[in-house]
Amino acid sequence: MTLDLLAPAALDDDALALLFTDARTVNTYVDGDVDPAEIQAAYEVLRWGPTAMNVSPLRLAVVPQGESRERLAAHMAGFNRDKTLAAPLVVVAVADPGFHRHLGTLAPHRVGLEQDLEPQEERRLEMARTNTLIQIGYLIVALRARGLSVGPMAGFDRAGLDADLFAGNGWRSELVLTVGWAAAENGTHPRAARLEVSDAVVVL
Amino acid sequence: MTLDLLAPAALDDDALALLFTDARTVNTYVDGDVDPAEIQAAYEVLRWGPTAMNVSPLRLAVVPQGESRERLAAHMAGFNRDKTLAAPLVVVAVADPGFHRHLGTLAPHRVGLEQDLEPQEERRLEMARTNTLIQIGYLIVALRARGLSVGPMAGFDRAGLDADLFAGNGWRSELVLTVGWAAAENGTHPRAARLEVSDAVVVL
Repeated sequence: MTLDLLAPAALDDDALALLFTDARTVNTYVDGDVDPAEIQAAYEVLRWGPTAMNVSPLRLAVVPQGESRERLAAHMAGFNRDKTLAAPLVVVAVADPGFHRHLGTLAPHRVGLEQDLEPQEERRLEMARTNTLIQIGYLIVALRARGLSVGPMAGFDRAGLDADLFAGNGWRSELVLTVGWAAAENGTHPRAARLEVSDAVVVL
Repeated sequence: MTLDLLAPAALDDDALALLFTDARTVNTYVDGDVDPAEIQAAYEVLRWGPTAMNVSPLRLAVVPQGESRERLAAHMAGFNRDKTLAAPLVVVAVADPGFHRHLGTLAPHRVGLEQDLEPQEERRLEMARTNTLIQIGYLIVALRARGLSVGPMAGFDRAGLDADLFAGNGWRSELVLTVGWAAAENGTHPRAARLEVSDAVVVL
């Protein structure tokens, strides 16, 4: 898409409110399941966000209510365990150090890159983590763009979780998110302050 | 904001096209400067995105045309040097391992956390990097939401750049982005493929 400079497309305040300015981390959702198809639809959108060399290492493990949810919850810390058990849907956002096996599709012009990266396990893990975290930013926006709310949780036993759920594919978990439609009484805390622009942005 | 389940707010396809599905990494922009106020306005929006414990470690160094731009460009690799010199505006997205000094504002209920983190330099750097990368995802979306296009670049001499520009505050650069309004002939490459949903999303 090329933008017309005379009338550049831009999101209106309602859209920004949905994605950022009014969006809150939610602890209480409307009862009932959320279809895993919601997560697949969000991925169809977020996958178009840029990553370095298009490596696209984010993988999403969707965990509905049931046995796999209880298995996941056992690795969560403190209050995160109850949140994990109660949420309509849970997503584990993981980095795939095996992303290079898809480079024939993702970056066909980079001939030989897959073979170059194959023995460089440490570099692949670093590339996977860096770009997965950027894609997690896209994921949170893309879920909110569907009207869903999220509750990101970083407090869990990563090694235990990965050994239990992802031993077969070598994935590294980065963030666990509850997902659902926010209840009217949604358990949000009073909103925490953010930095002043002048504390975060400098002009060199 | 609590969402009405009967009519959940959601972005329409035009908005998703602007942010994700039609948005492209741009190499050629409309001539003329872009006001650093554009970056400040984007930060005012993206800062509301969630980070772990609200640590908000992303800092943005805005580099207009001039002496500081040439200084930055000297650290860029290959073609990125020319892109850096030519762009209307450039932003260096950095992680601030000194984020803990703002926790009195950002997380006032976590009494003592600033003091706990003060001696844990390695842990602070890891927390800063992880959450900065997620915020970079928000940044790219927030710039596109203003109608701007971006060209993210990961190829640069990080150590040299940080020593030259950020020695005084200990910031660690993560990504350099060109920013501007896309020209009609904007130098985009043919669009690379993305993964199929079934290659990236699994239901446990």
